[in-house]
Amino acid sequence: MNLAAYIDHTLLKPDCSEADIAQLCREAITHGFAAVCVPPNFVAQAAEQVKCSGVKVATVIGFPLGYNLSTAKMVEAFSAIEDGAHEMDMVMNISAFKSGAIDVVRNDIQAIFAICKAEDVVLKVIIETALLNQNEIKSICELCAEIEVDFVKTSTGFSHSGAVLEDVQLMRQVLPEHIQIKASGGIKTKAQAEAFIEAGASRLGCSSSLQLIR
Amino acid sequence: MNLAAYIDHTLLKPDCSEADIAQLCREAITHGFAAVCVPPNFVAQAAEQVKCSGVKVATVIGFPLGYNLSTAKMVEAFSAIEDGAHEMDMVMNISAFKSGAIDVVRNDIQAIFAICKAEDVVLKVIIETALLNQNEIKSICELCAEIEVDFVKTSTGFSHSGAVLEDVQLMRQVLPEHIQIKASGGIKTKAQAEAFIEAGASRLGCSSSLQLIR
Repeated sequence: MNLAAYIDHTLLKPDCSEADIAQLCREAITHGFAAVCVPPNFVAQAAEQVKCSGVKVATVIGFPLGYNLSTAKMVEAFSAIEDGAHEMDMVMNISAFKSGAIDVVRNDIQAIFAICKAEDVVLKVIIETALLNQNEIKSICELCAEIEVDFVKTSTGFSHSGAVLEDVQLMRQVLPEHIQIKASGGIKTKAQAEAFIEAGASRLGCSSSLQLIR
Repeated sequence: MNLAAYIDHTLLKPDCSEADIAQLCREAITHGFAAVCVPPNFVAQAAEQVKCSGVKVATVIGFPLGYNLSTAKMVEAFSAIEDGAHEMDMVMNISAFKSGAIDVVRNDIQAIFAICKAEDVVLKVIIETALLNQNEIKSICELCAEIEVDFVKTSTGFSHSGAVLEDVQLMRQVLPEHIQIKASGGIKTKAQAEAFIEAGASRLGCSSSLQLIR
């Protein structure tokens, strides 16, 4: 299995620098990772650097807490596309979901979905499984399936835990086959990575990608 | 000392609900906290609830990582004002600062400052001291003083540590007297709160406010 092709090589620390992002992009090109996942303010730099390499540029929207207004998320999405992003990892509005405001959650995802689809950009919706019970995971996966997003993604990596195998298995059961799963947060070993793929993930978000493919 | 008048009663968890925010606002009115600090999507609700009580509504911009584009932060600021916010706690662009892009950091703060000043809204700039060394804290305080922001705030509460007494003392030395300091992150006891005020903070961001004033 060519593990590298499954990996979004990720650096989202608040204090990462231009030089760190340049290094991340070099590593992604060298090892053939699927994408780099970088903060909004580094999308243009990354897009320029990975140009023609086959590596995609992903960025984050409403990250990592998700309770930003949809208008702010939309501006982030438009700017990311303008700067050259190919993929977007948006955090759903978890606090609206917990308040029972499903229409807010739906409209928020749909707004970003519409922007992405108009530009052939891949949309991954981060549901933050660590903050959800099994019923909630099921319900939000059904909503994502209805909207036809490209990926449902487990975690931001900023909550108290990341991806859990059982959650990915549940997501795989609920989601139609054509909607992919990205497992992320705390994936640090090759064995973990392979287990998540076995459970149904077709993309992995990793900050420790080099140690993982070694 | 009336400790309550120093406190921004804060709830910024990604899964906080409408009911949690309603409870936060009730507590703030009962105890006379300076403000409630709430996620962007709950500003309108909080503003309606604390109306005429003297409690202010604060919200967060570019929170908690700071590397959002200025355009996205500006939309957050405009929307927050429209929804009734009186104060804004914005995270500076730490990753631009670490990349030596001081103009990006300055323009980012100035953009939000201009929006706030036009509407008499208080601006607090979160510098995330946990990610900065002493020289960096000094340098960013000088920049904030030059822009004449209302407050410099230590922490988001989402980094590996919150406010530290020595950092607040340093900030107080560097900042002119009329620029206030908000200490936040990990302040859980009355003794800690009083020590931060003694060190020069005139506002405290607390999630454990009730236990602190008891």
